[in-house]
Amino acid sequence: MSNKKQNILIIGAGLCGSLLALRLGQRGYNVNVYEMRPDLRTTDISAGRSINLAFSDRGNKAMKLVGIEDKVKELCIPMNGRMIHDKEGNTFLSNYSGRDYEYINSISRGELNGLLLDEAEKHDNVSIHFNKKCNSVDFENTTATFQDYNSKEEFIEDADCIIATDGAGSALRKSYYLGKKFLFSFSQDYLSHGYKELTFLPKEDGSYKTYKNALHIWPRSSFMLIALPNLDGSFTVTLFLSYSEGEYNFNNLTTPELVTEFFQKEFPDALEIMPNLVDDFFENPTAALGTVKCSPWHYKGNTLLMGDSAHAIVPFYGQGMNASFEDVVEFDKVLDLNLNHWEATFEAYEKNRKKDTDAIADLAIDNFHEMKGHVANPIFQEKRKIEMALEKEFPSAYSSKYSLVTFNENIGYRQAMLRGRAQDKAILNMLTDKIISSEDNLKDILEKVKVETEAILEDDRIAGLH
Amino acid sequence: MSNKKQNILIIGAGLCGSLLALRLGQRGYNVNVYEMRPDLRTTDISAGRSINLAFSDRGNKAMKLVGIEDKVKELCIPMNGRMIHDKEGNTFLSNYSGRDYEYINSISRGELNGLLLDEAEKHDNVSIHFNKKCNSVDFENTTATFQDYNSKEEFIEDADCIIATDGAGSALRKSYYLGKKFLFSFSQDYLSHGYKELTFLPKEDGSYKTYKNALHIWPRSSFMLIALPNLDGSFTVTLFLSYSEGEYNFNNLTTPELVTEFFQKEFPDALEIMPNLVDDFFENPTAALGTVKCSPWHYKGNTLLMGDSAHAIVPFYGQGMNASFEDVVEFDKVLDLNLNHWEATFEAYEKNRKKDTDAIADLAIDNFHEMKGHVANPIFQEKRKIEMALEKEFPSAYSSKYSLVTFNENIGYRQAMLRGRAQDKAILNMLTDKIISSEDNLKDILEKVKVETEAILEDDRIAGLH
Repeated sequence: MSNKKQNILIIGAGLCGSLLALRLGQRGYNVNVYEMRPDLRTTDISAGRSINLAFSDRGNKAMKLVGIEDKVKELCIPMNGRMIHDKEGNTFLSNYSGRDYEYINSISRGELNGLLLDEAEKHDNVSIHFNKKCNSVDFENTTATFQDYNSKEEFIEDADCIIATDGAGSALRKSYYLGKKFLFSFSQDYLSHGYKELTFLPKEDGSYKTYKNALHIWPRSSFMLIALPNLDGSFTVTLFLSYSEGEYNFNNLTTPELVTEFFQKEFPDALEIMPNLVDDFFENPTAALGTVKCSPWHYKGNTLLMGDSAHAIVPFYGQGMNASFEDVVEFDKVLDLNLNHWEATFEAYEKNRKKDTDAIADLAIDNFHEMKGHVANPIFQEKRKIEMALEKEFPSAYSSKYSLVTFNENIGYRQAMLRGRAQDKAILNMLTDKIISSEDNLKDILEKVKVETEAILEDDRIAGLH
Repeated sequence: MSNKKQNILIIGAGLCGSLLALRLGQRGYNVNVYEMRPDLRTTDISAGRSINLAFSDRGNKAMKLVGIEDKVKELCIPMNGRMIHDKEGNTFLSNYSGRDYEYINSISRGELNGLLLDEAEKHDNVSIHFNKKCNSVDFENTTATFQDYNSKEEFIEDADCIIATDGAGSALRKSYYLGKKFLFSFSQDYLSHGYKELTFLPKEDGSYKTYKNALHIWPRSSFMLIALPNLDGSFTVTLFLSYSEGEYNFNNLTTPELVTEFFQKEFPDALEIMPNLVDDFFENPTAALGTVKCSPWHYKGNTLLMGDSAHAIVPFYGQGMNASFEDVVEFDKVLDLNLNHWEATFEAYEKNRKKDTDAIADLAIDNFHEMKGHVANPIFQEKRKIEMALEKEFPSAYSSKYSLVTFNENIGYRQAMLRGRAQDKAILNMLTDKIISSEDNLKDILEKVKVETEAILEDDRIAGLH
């Protein structure tokens, strides 16, 4: 593999696959990418996938790696915090960080993917083939079977190695599972909630109907609505709701009247700016929310899972795309080690990476509960207030769990999770026990939080936890 | 379903299926059981399954329910503790409880299964059909397809409801997964270690070659050997070892010389009493250790997973069979509620039960690490010493995690896990911080452990954990 003229076959030209193709193209490999969908730069395909996404520092690290940070920035709409909407329509902005330069961005999936495809195709050694669906992978022989969408013909491609970036429904992962050639640990876990995409259309003059630079949330404890801005003045709105539990759920919201009643009662200020609600609701699909974990990701030096195919997560930390982009950065680091064999390369990559993708999967589930309920809970709000103040006053000495995960790309997700959870536990308990209060001197609070966080981590270590 | 003449089809006549058939037979249902294997009472089948098992209080609760406690007792060999063997062949007995009347039992899978089949067949309304392998279940139509082992013919059976007790490789679970008719959360997780069964044969006079009334353990940190007694004077010995890691592993133990060298170095006192080692090692299969979790267990009121088919666990807590037997007890309790519909019955059963089977699955993984390493670790040994003394001195006021799980059948596994883990954390941390020592007054220790345990549980509760 030190011979750069090796042939690499990538399955899937989504966000992860097109970034990987670009990076491997830059490194001089011969790269062929097969994508089941048509070229999204020339065909309009939304197909039930999220229209916009949260883009933050871990994703941006990958854009720096491939040298397109500035181009991506043009696609970004900064979101400085969560705009929380209560049932009376009152709003409250909760910044993501006490440091002004830390924010997340709303970005169009299609625009970003198109940019990555354009950049990848600038390399003569990268070819992208659309409308070619992978049906299965023969991981013993490093070949993949595809079907052409137009001709319906099947054909087989081989390569020196195959990397599957074909998302949560990965054909390679399915072949691992059904092949039963090795012990394949695998999980798919669905939440009791599904989601449906809706829209706030732009005003007639093309401007935004609500505050542009925030991620809007209507937390309602057992369900929630969120909205992210698009460059065209619209917002993509997502309803997260149980399929079958609660007074209103996806199974029983079957008439325009019921949907309107539900929004009137729970999200009156949102309903006011979405006259298109009922049409959107009944036209758009309800989709499931699942977490996928598996291991091993690779079979010998033949095949490797990367991105959502290896670790699909729920969207509640805004880290799905960022984690997949970070996969490419981490893989690139292992390539720099020149391990000479794909097997050693894949093994080193998985060994280093899996603990972190497991962690972000768990963090994303935590945040599902936090976003639904805790952001509206007084003690969580007081914690958040203290953390904002600590980050503002001591920008180099304190980072909240959210900051560690989102803005500290030099710390792995697992470290961010362990420290972040311990900090949360420390602050919540000290608030409850009245050992600290948001009225206290910040320097004293910082000291107490640090000491208590270390004590919590040490207690867990002694007990053999994590 | 209040009509007791309903037809219930059970897939699998293993330990769980035969107990369930017996209980449903006692309750007056028409029960048909289909089993893929021949009748183990008339055919010798060991087929790579564990020969003996640990039987304890939760399992015994089920035997009481069906009225065969005394008959089962005759099959039991009490094991009062773990006999730990070090590398020099020194032994050290660590009791399972400070209460003399609390111990676990070694029992023959075959004998116990045979007894349950005999008891079930005493009911005219119970029929058991052997050599009938279930290939798939049509859970929409409540029918199952079987193949006769002898005639090879396929046939379809229907019933008012189908309960699958067909183990870790369940045909019904596979049909749920492949059917994609509903969101089916599912995981299979393999350990890096596999296992192989070996034997200590009886002495020529039929007596035991080592101490009979203990579960013998040779803990070696990254691998271990265990041995459980059989009624015929033999012990079934199990080697738990990594497939590919460490100096010696299942992949590289390929010659009689290497196997002997490995045992000579690591288990010299065991090797001395197993002249049959090499033959056993190369004749017996190496099997995988996996955990299976899934949800939902039921599809409407048509079908239900029970026992290992719903929750296969690794063997390190000795609770696999006990958990499956407890499933039948818990199911029986729900039947007593007379919910009138199978759907409501299945739903209530899963809602109540799943949290506990998830917990024992996690506890069994914990114990894998504890048995390999911690039982030989000084601070864990000191904890164990204190807990034994507390249980002896305050039999009604203290139970260790092991006791809560194993001997407290009136507490669910999840409660046992939460309290047990908090107690462990409390004791290990107080020992490390020299807040308690095994030399202290026991009453003081008990007080401190109780206070600290409650504090740990409360801190977790405030932080929104569990």
